[in-house]
Order: sequence, then C-alpha cells, then structure tokens
Amino acid sequence: MTKELQTNITSHFWQRYRNLMANNSIPFQWDMINDNNKVEITNDAFAAGGSADKSHAIANLKIVAGQEKGHFFGMDFQDTDVYKWLESAAYVLKYAPSEKLHKEADSVVDLIAEAQEDGGYLSTMFQIEMPERKFKRLQQSHELYSMGHYIEAGVAYYEVTGNQKALMIAEKMAKCIGNHFGLEEGKVKGIPGHPEIELALARLYEATKNKKYLALAKYFITQRGKDTEFFDRQNEADGKDRNFFPGMDKFGNRYYFADKPVTEQQDVHGHAVRVLYFCTGLAHVARLTGDQELMKTAHRLWNDTVKKQMYITGNVGQTTTGEAFTYDYDLPNDSNYGETCASVAMVFFGKQMLASDLNGQYGDVIEKELFNGALSGIALDGMHYFYVNPLEADPKASKGNPGKNHINTQRSSWFACACCPSNITRLLSSVDKYLYQVKDNTILADQFIANETSFDDGIKIKLASDYPWDGKLTFTIENPQEKYFNFAVRIPSWSLKNYQVSFNGREIDPILEKQLVTFPITGSETQIIVNLDMRVHLMRANNYVKDDMGKVAIQRGPVIYCAEEEDNQVPLWCYRLRNKLTFTANYDNNLLDGVVTLDTNDVERANQNSEQLYYEDDSFEWTQAHLRLIPYYAWANRSNGQMQVWFNKA
Amino acid sequence: MTKELQTNITSHFWQRYRNLMANNSIPFQWDMINDNNKVEITNDAFAAGGSADKSHAIANLKIVAGQEKGHFFGMDFQDTDVYKWLESAAYVLKYAPSEKLHKEADSVVDLIAEAQEDGGYLSTMFQIEMPERKFKRLQQSHELYSMGHYIEAGVAYYEVTGNQKALMIAEKMAKCIGNHFGLEEGKVKGIPGHPEIELALARLYEATKNKKYLALAKYFITQRGKDTEFFDRQNEADGKDRNFFPGMDKFGNRYYFADKPVTEQQDVHGHAVRVLYFCTGLAHVARLTGDQELMKTAHRLWNDTVKKQMYITGNVGQTTTGEAFTYDYDLPNDSNYGETCASVAMVFFGKQMLASDLNGQYGDVIEKELFNGALSGIALDGMHYFYVNPLEADPKASKGNPGKNHINTQRSSWFACACCPSNITRLLSSVDKYLYQVKDNTILADQFIANETSFDDGIKIKLASDYPWDGKLTFTIENPQEKYFNFAVRIPSWSLKNYQVSFNGREIDPILEKQLVTFPITGSETQIIVNLDMRVHLMRANNYVKDDMGKVAIQRGPVIYCAEEEDNQVPLWCYRLRNKLTFTANYDNNLLDGVVTLDTNDVERANQNSEQLYYEDDSFEWTQAHLRLIPYYAWANRSNGQMQVWFNKA
Repeated sequence: MTKELQTNITSHFWQRYRNLMANNSIPFQWDMINDNNKVEITNDAFAAGGSADKSHAIANLKIVAGQEKGHFFGMDFQDTDVYKWLESAAYVLKYAPSEKLHKEADSVVDLIAEAQEDGGYLSTMFQIEMPERKFKRLQQSHELYSMGHYIEAGVAYYEVTGNQKALMIAEKMAKCIGNHFGLEEGKVKGIPGHPEIELALARLYEATKNKKYLALAKYFITQRGKDTEFFDRQNEADGKDRNFFPGMDKFGNRYYFADKPVTEQQDVHGHAVRVLYFCTGLAHVARLTGDQELMKTAHRLWNDTVKKQMYITGNVGQTTTGEAFTYDYDLPNDSNYGETCASVAMVFFGKQMLASDLNGQYGDVIEKELFNGALSGIALDGMHYFYVNPLEADPKASKGNPGKNHINTQRSSWFACACCPSNITRLLSSVDKYLYQVKDNTILADQFIANETSFDDGIKIKLASDYPWDGKLTFTIENPQEKYFNFAVRIPSWSLKNYQVSFNGREIDPILEKQLVTFPITGSETQIIVNLDMRVHLMRANNYVKDDMGKVAIQRGPVIYCAEEEDNQVPLWCYRLRNKLTFTANYDNNLLDGVVTLDTNDVERANQNSEQLYYEDDSFEWTQAHLRLIPYYAWANRSNGQMQVWFNKA
Repeated sequence: MTKELQTNITSHFWQRYRNLMANNSIPFQWDMINDNNKVEITNDAFAAGGSADKSHAIANLKIVAGQEKGHFFGMDFQDTDVYKWLESAAYVLKYAPSEKLHKEADSVVDLIAEAQEDGGYLSTMFQIEMPERKFKRLQQSHELYSMGHYIEAGVAYYEVTGNQKALMIAEKMAKCIGNHFGLEEGKVKGIPGHPEIELALARLYEATKNKKYLALAKYFITQRGKDTEFFDRQNEADGKDRNFFPGMDKFGNRYYFADKPVTEQQDVHGHAVRVLYFCTGLAHVARLTGDQELMKTAHRLWNDTVKKQMYITGNVGQTTTGEAFTYDYDLPNDSNYGETCASVAMVFFGKQMLASDLNGQYGDVIEKELFNGALSGIALDGMHYFYVNPLEADPKASKGNPGKNHINTQRSSWFACACCPSNITRLLSSVDKYLYQVKDNTILADQFIANETSFDDGIKIKLASDYPWDGKLTFTIENPQEKYFNFAVRIPSWSLKNYQVSFNGREIDPILEKQLVTFPITGSETQIIVNLDMRVHLMRANNYVKDDMGKVAIQRGPVIYCAEEEDNQVPLWCYRLRNKLTFTANYDNNLLDGVVTLDTNDVERANQNSEQLYYEDDSFEWTQAHLRLIPYYAWANRSNGQMQVWFNKA
C-alpha cells in the first residue's frame, strides 16, 4: 500500500548522532582514507595480519585509475573503506545537504568509475599486484565482498543524489560477476569466502527490478555449502603457499559457513560477520523469491543467534579466534569479541526478517543494537571506535593476559583492518530506515525515534518522545483522505508486563499479537499514546550461561547499563546487589552528552580483612556501598578503566 | 647434625601411589619411550608444534650410539623423557627393589654412555640432524635443559644404586658445559632459554662436593638477564628462519625470564616451568653459596608466586599462551594452564626454600601440590596424565571455545611433548624426600606422610597417621642415646586457628614460631600427638581475584574439593552454597581408591522458569538441593564431564 516519502528525525538523542556523523565522523573518515590524518592506527583485528601506518584506500584506487603510481597497500578489501564511506556520505546528504560533501562523494564515484575495468571488475589489490589471480582464491580474496560493498554504496548514493554513474558502476559489477559465476556451462560454480555480495545483489535488484540480480543473489545463497571441495580445489590450483591471510586455508568449511547446504544449517557458526551478512542476504532473497525453505532456514538461524548466542547488549561473536561464534549459551563477558560490524549486521538481518514478518521480536533486537551493542562501537566524539565490545573490561587484564589482549579499553582512531568505523557510521547515518515497516495494509512503528514522516496518500505520522530516556510515545496520525489502514506499535519485550495505551484520549486494552498492538485507522486525525515501562529491570541470563550465573544485568528501557571505574570504587567486581533494591534514575544533561544515570545504595562491597591470597570465609563480610551506573554504549568516553555489565546479586 | 638414614613409608594413601609407580607408571613409561605401547598421543601442549604417533626417545639415543639407523624424531628435548624415567626408576628401586627394573635402568645408563660424545656433549637431535648447530641457538635448543635432566637422573641413580657410570656421565656433561660456558676468555657468555641446568649442577655439587659445579651453577644464575641481546645475537648468527619452535624467537627476553639481572626481578613472569626451575636453582645456589642478594631475590619471587599468582590447588601458570604466568591476582579458573610440571617445580622450589629457612609456609605449598595441583596430573591408574589442570572444566567448552581448547577433560596416555608424565612420576616416587628437614640441631616434620625413619645417632621417628583423611599425627621418637635435639612440627596454615598438641600424654600450649611448634627432645622415648583441624573450611580468595569473587572453595585438611558431573546435576555452576552450611565427611573405601567425600544439603540450585536467554529477575529463584564433593586430585577418573572448584555462596 502506502510508501514512506520523507522523514525528519526530531529525536534529541539521534539528532545529536546525526550531527556527529555529518560534522565529525564523515569528515574524519574522509581524511583517513585520503591519508590526511596523523592518528595512531591500531592493529587489534584478528584478520589484520600486520600493522599499518596509513590507510591508502583512496590511493589504491588512484593507482588503478592511472592517477598515481605505486604499490597496493592494505587489506585485500581495503577498497571497502572507501565504499562504506560513500554509503555513509549518501545517507548524511539526505538529511544534511552539503555542497562540499556532495562534491567529494561525486569525485569518489568518478574515481571508482575510472578504476573499474571495462568488464566491470574492481578490486585494486588484484588489479595492481596480481591480475593473474583474479577470482582464483575466493576463500580469502574478498573480491565479491568488496564489489558487494560498492554495490550497496552505489545504490544508496544513486537513490539519494540521483547520480546515475554510481548505479552504473554497480550494475557493471553485477554483470561482471554474473558473467563469471553461476551454474551455467562455462561459469565458475564458486562462492565467496566472505559473504556480502548476496545482500548487495538483492538490494540492487530492489533498486533496478532487474531479475538477473536476484537470480544471481539466490545462486550465491543456495550454492553455499553444496560443493565442499571448492575452496580447497581453488587454493590448490592457485598454489599452496599463496594465502592472503596466513593459515586461513586451514580453517575449514565450517568456519566459512560453507560446510553444508544452507537449508541444512542448524546454527550460526564460524566468523560472525560473514554468517550474519549471509543471513541478511538469505532473509532478503527468501522474501523476494518467496522461497519457504530458505525462509525457514533464516528463521532457524535467527533464533539460534538471538536466543542462544547473543549478549544482553546485542553483541555477538564470542571468540577472538577467527572473530567467531562458539556454541550455544557460551557467553563469556571478559574474553568475547562482539565485533561492532557483527552488531551492525544484526540490524540488517533483523530488518530483513521484519520485512517479511511484522513481529516485535525483530525490532527488539534492532533496538538492542541501536542503543547498546552497535552504538558502543563509536565514541561520543564520533572519531574513536571499538572493534571489539566486551561486557567486562579491565586495562590490567587486556595488557597482562594474552587471552584478553584483543580487548581494548580505549577506543581507537583507526584500525589496520578498518571495517568497523565506516560500518557503524553507515548505520547511524541511516537510522531513519528503521522507524517504520510498511507491509500490506499496515504501517508498523518499529523504532521509537521521534520523527515526522510523510507517506503517500497524504498520511503523516508524528512521533513525539524523549526515548530512550522516557517511555511516553505520542503518535499523531494525520490521514486527510480518511483512508483505512492499520497502524501497529511494537511493544518491546522489556515492557510486555507493563504498558498503557490510549487511543484518542481513551485508555484502551488492546490485543497484543506478535508483540504488536494494532489499531485500525480511518479518521483524519488520530492520537495514540503508548506508555512503556521505564522502571529499572534486573535481568537474569538463562541457566545454561555459565558466566552470568548468580548475576544480574541492569536495563532501563532499551538501554543496558554498566559501571565504570570513573564513577565507582575498583575492583568493580567487589560490588554485590542486595536481594531487594531500588535505583534512582536521573537525567544529567552534562554527563556523556546527556544520559540517565542509575544510582543505588542497595549494594554491598566485599570487605576483606586479609592480605592473604586465600583466607577463611568467616573473616569475610559485605558492607553497604553506593553504585552508579551509566549506559553501556557510553563507556570508555572519560578515562581508561574497568567496566562491568553483570553484577553479583545476593 | 643428624642425618636421615632410611625411610619406610607406611601411609596407606602414599603406599598406594608408590605401588602404582612401581607396578604401573614406570613399566608403562618404559614401554612408551621404547615405542612398545599402542596408545593415542595427545598433542595439547603449547610447545608441541606438531602431532606425534610415537615417542622414539630411546630410539634417538640408539641412533646416536650406533645401534640403530634412522632420523631423529620428537621435541628437541625428547632425550629428557628417558632421563626423567631413569630418575623415577632410581627412586622406585629405593623402596621396591626389582631385578628387572634395575637391569632396564642399567641398560639405559649404558646406552646413554654410548651416545655421549667424548667431550661430554649429549643431545640426540643435534648429534643426529645438525651437529654444526650445537650450542648455537640456546634460546630454543634445550641442550642445557636436556643435560640438566640427565645430571639429575644420573645423580639419583648413582645415589640409589651406586652405579658409577651414571655419575660419570653427569660429570662429563658438567665438564663439557663448563668448558663452553662462563665469563672466562674464550668461553660463551651464554644462558639457556629453558633453565634446569642451574638446579642440576647444584645437585651434582651436593653429590660430589666438586666446587666447579657450584660455580658453574652460580654463573648460569647470575648471568641470566645481564646480556639482553645474547639470544638475538645467537639467533641472527644461526639464521633467522632456523627456529626449532616457530615464532619463539619473537617472544622477547621477558618470556625467558632474561629481561634483567635476576636480583632486579620483582615478580615471576613468562613460561611458568622455566622460571620455577630457575628459582629452584636460585634458592639452592643462594643457600650453598650464602649469597644474601640471591636469597632475597628467591624470597621475593617465592612470595610473588605463592601470594599473588597461585591457584588454591597449587597450580600455577594462568595462560596457555606460552604456558605462562600472567600478572598478580589474575586467576581465571576455566582458561588457566596450571601445567603439571609447574606444580612439580613448585615442590622443588619449596624444598630449596625450606632447606635454608625452617618455616611452615614452604611445607604448606609442598603439601598443597602433593595433595592437589601436582597430584591431579596423574590418573588413579598411574597411566593417564593431565598436562593442563583447570579449576573448572566443561567438555562442551573445551570443544567449542578456542580459548579453552587446551583444557582436556580426560587424562591422556601420552603427549607429543611428554614432559609431564615423567615429572609427576619422579615426584611421586620420591615423596620420602619431603618428610623431614634437618637443619642445625632441628629435625622438622614437614610433610605428614606416615613413616618410620632412622637417623644417625640411633634416633628413630615414627609417624602414625591416616593423613590426609584424618588430622591426628602421632609421633613416636626413639632417642636411645638421649641426645639433645629439637623436634619441630609444621602447623599447616589451614589449622592455625585450631590444633591441639600433647607431649608425652600431657596437653600443652606450645609457642608457634614461623608456623612451627618446636620441642626440645632429651628423653629416650617421646610421644608427641598433634591434632589438626579437620573441619571443612570455606575459603575465599583475595578481593583482587576477579574470577573468585562471591565464591568459596572447599578445603578439608590439605585437600581441596571439587564437584563432578558424575555425582551432581549439571550445569554445576547452578549450585549456590547457603550462607550457613555444614558438610558431612565420609570415608568411602570403594570410591576413587578411597577418598573422603563431602556432602551437603545446605545448597541451592538456580531454578529457572524461562526458556528465554534473558528474563526478569523476579521469575528467578533458588531451590534447595544436594551437593557432593570429591577431592580435586581425583577428578576425571570416572567419566568425561563438568568439574568445578569454586562455588557461588549466598
């Protein structure tokens, strides 16, 4: 039915982030990829392989375009830092027009066009250093991954600015890929080591309606795991010792989520971002093609991820070894990976699931990422980033225990493998995508970011709210043509026990289905007020989660809280919450760019009367103390210290 | 003063182990090193580098001796598996004479003599594969380590059997090493990457009184860390890509405990076994030479190890990365290393500290290892071993989380790097060394292993006890010549609050100094009874230990307890001890070759009413349950399941 036409975000919380993207992150990242910044580059990514003192991402493209001379530098997917910047720039231009940015972005499109081969191929490492190895070692080459990222960027930039060249490059890439890969005679029946092309081609199909792209996307989805010798065969042919990433040929098909056909997969495993990008494409293609088997698989993998392998903050990927998932209910807090990119990918995956099934559970996860797991990946200044997001951090441990070396306790300016900064940027500059989900005759208000949005047929929806700090959501719906449609509001899982709804001033008791309350709208002006439960919730983890046993995490609204050394006594692990406790919630405009803090005196600290390493329990006692919590996403913005999400409870 | 002449161990607990050594472990290991066993060889050691399907340790020596043809196989210290077997055999022959074993051991000595070069050098890998690289890459070569182990074995075998050839080989090695290393003109001012030669030379000095050996030992102690470029220089000269262990040239001097002169070292760090072997030599040389600066250092390093980096079981080495220490108070239970060899080394270190200072703290640690951390390294059948000793184990985690892959939940028959099996064997076959410490005019009863021991001057001491299950120690002292001497008994730290002493039938209130009660003995027959506190103790860890916060460990006598899946519900982490609790202790002769079990009903289990991954605390509750504990050392002898030492407490 109706289509979203224009959105104006009015949320104080998100306006700040949108300004931050426009004024800080995008210019900073532009300077990074152009090597104009003098900042320290952190080498903490598993896959980075080596240290770096520059980005060289634009330079690589210039070399291929013949504008500069030199050698390729960086990861084999270095190009994607440019593409994801371009995609972020497109989203920013939508809400913050800027001639300067528009010009920079146009110039990037021009550069990419010049670097692209006539046949559509583009991957600067191969073009500069090893043209004879193109598409010869897909397990590690990231060529399809890189072109996938360009396709996403090109579509986004075309959609915002109308730049035809941006779209043309994407279509040429798709054509090149279609010419090389597929089940048809003479084509390579291959798949990429790192998924991304699947979701990109689905997106390109939606922009162009060219069914070839959808078919090609489906090919990459369904071919995965069918030929379990493909990678080995290619690697062998390419030469044993010619890895791009030392040892990655030994990780096995399971790591690449290519150990069996996708419809037989029962759980998520291997590299977290890879499998989640794949699942995003899977859900997208399943919906576009109506393939029930694929959709069932997407549901199964969603459930495994969200119900068995996700941190309460939304972070996923439990181990630094291979940046990977481990197994169900294994959720260590102080050695996890929780890559920012993986949280961003969860938002994409959730969005695709939601598009085929209006159900509150998807928005719950998207919200979890937006206010916690993904958001913690960027500093309040927009120019420092986390690659890894722990739920418990201690600078001493990060320095002193090799099993925790991957956990930074201060955000970095940039990384040798710089996937995360531009990924969080493209998410935060496009939160308007997540406000509403339109399906059949229903408009679902999924994410509660205050906004004014016009749809066609003259429908306008305004959401006034101080979410996430306040739970009152006031929807004003203008419907001048008095068309009939359904308006649905997601009731977050944390509010299911306690929420009030009023419809045009009258309190009502609506039916809840799939975590949604739905209102038939026929009048020209409707006001719906939903009051969500803003009490502080103490959350337990499932008994199977060893690392959270006896502990609780603290949540208020969608926001997960943590304690930081800055506000509390260390060691933080010496606090224990009393059996009955209350928190005082206070909004402090001057703290961390405006947050609600939680304070409690219903807490105790371990009081030790011994200098011994071990001593008898009878000389141990708990004494009353005070604890202050801040939102998890805002940690590591003041000083380098301990942080903790889960607390012992009496 | 007086000297220990002969010991007969009567302890039920230790007789069983001594028989096990004689009847199972020594014959099994003999077959292993001779490649007569068909067992699976586990490749779980960090340093192993590759898998193995055989030992080849005797074969390597036969090749050098010209009795066989072929290539070297194994770790560059493969020879030490033979030497440590020989040392164990010596100790076994002392209490369980066997013609067969004596013949086997003699034949090994003959073989070693034939393999040894005229100049004294012996390291089969170098002799067979790369004679030109002898002593050229000491950081990794283990040549001095290997010869050190032979020296220990040779001295032990000579002392027990009088085999002169065994001693001669050792002295030839020492001469060879003395000719090559030292500060004198023309010698290499080098040190080994893996200490061991220091303690071996000190031991050789004590057997021969040849002061050259002591001087050479002191050279290796004091030279360490003085020339921080030595390893790099040697590696460079040997050739960059000629590592024996890939990457080990990059670990840095700190890992090798060679980052600064030993007297400047403030804490233990790097590879746990290396530093503890070094400390053993350090304490020994400090005592023999009377060097106060070295002794102060030994004390400092002892304190750091025992008071800041030791698990309650006595295990040390917190990380699998480099089999190493991490930092003070970092004691994770489910990802630690706790190598069996490191616990064995702690016994050696403790013994050397005790010899220079009669203080109960050293015996406390020796006891901790004998009944817990070291003992858990061997199965009740004597033929299965742990390399790594965790305090919390879950087969699912070991399989599913790469950060815990090093933790086996079942003991192995053998390892590609087989240092631990023969190390625990040589310790358990020589527990008689730890009963008494004689110093000046005092005989200290340090370890409470029931025994009858004769000293010179006609003194005989008999200890009757069912330790560690019972705390009554009855010492009967015969002193027919009515000589005056002091008899001291260590009061274990866990009994300091509650112990009774009677002297010839009268209860007395003795003065405690350095954790010892001391009695002047003048009569011809004296009976001293010490009753130790056999109540169950709940132990807390220092507040700085994150992983034990809110938890207690359970100790009875010297024995630390654990829960196993075999006796309890899983997950084990769902148990919580009530605030007040009592345990019932029962000796069960049919369980685990006889153990005291601890049972309690004062325990609760997390009762979860939700299938959700996260859910609100108000639907969580604890319900009454039952928990059974067994001694930690006896875990993993029945089935493959979870194990846990630390428990949440209300």
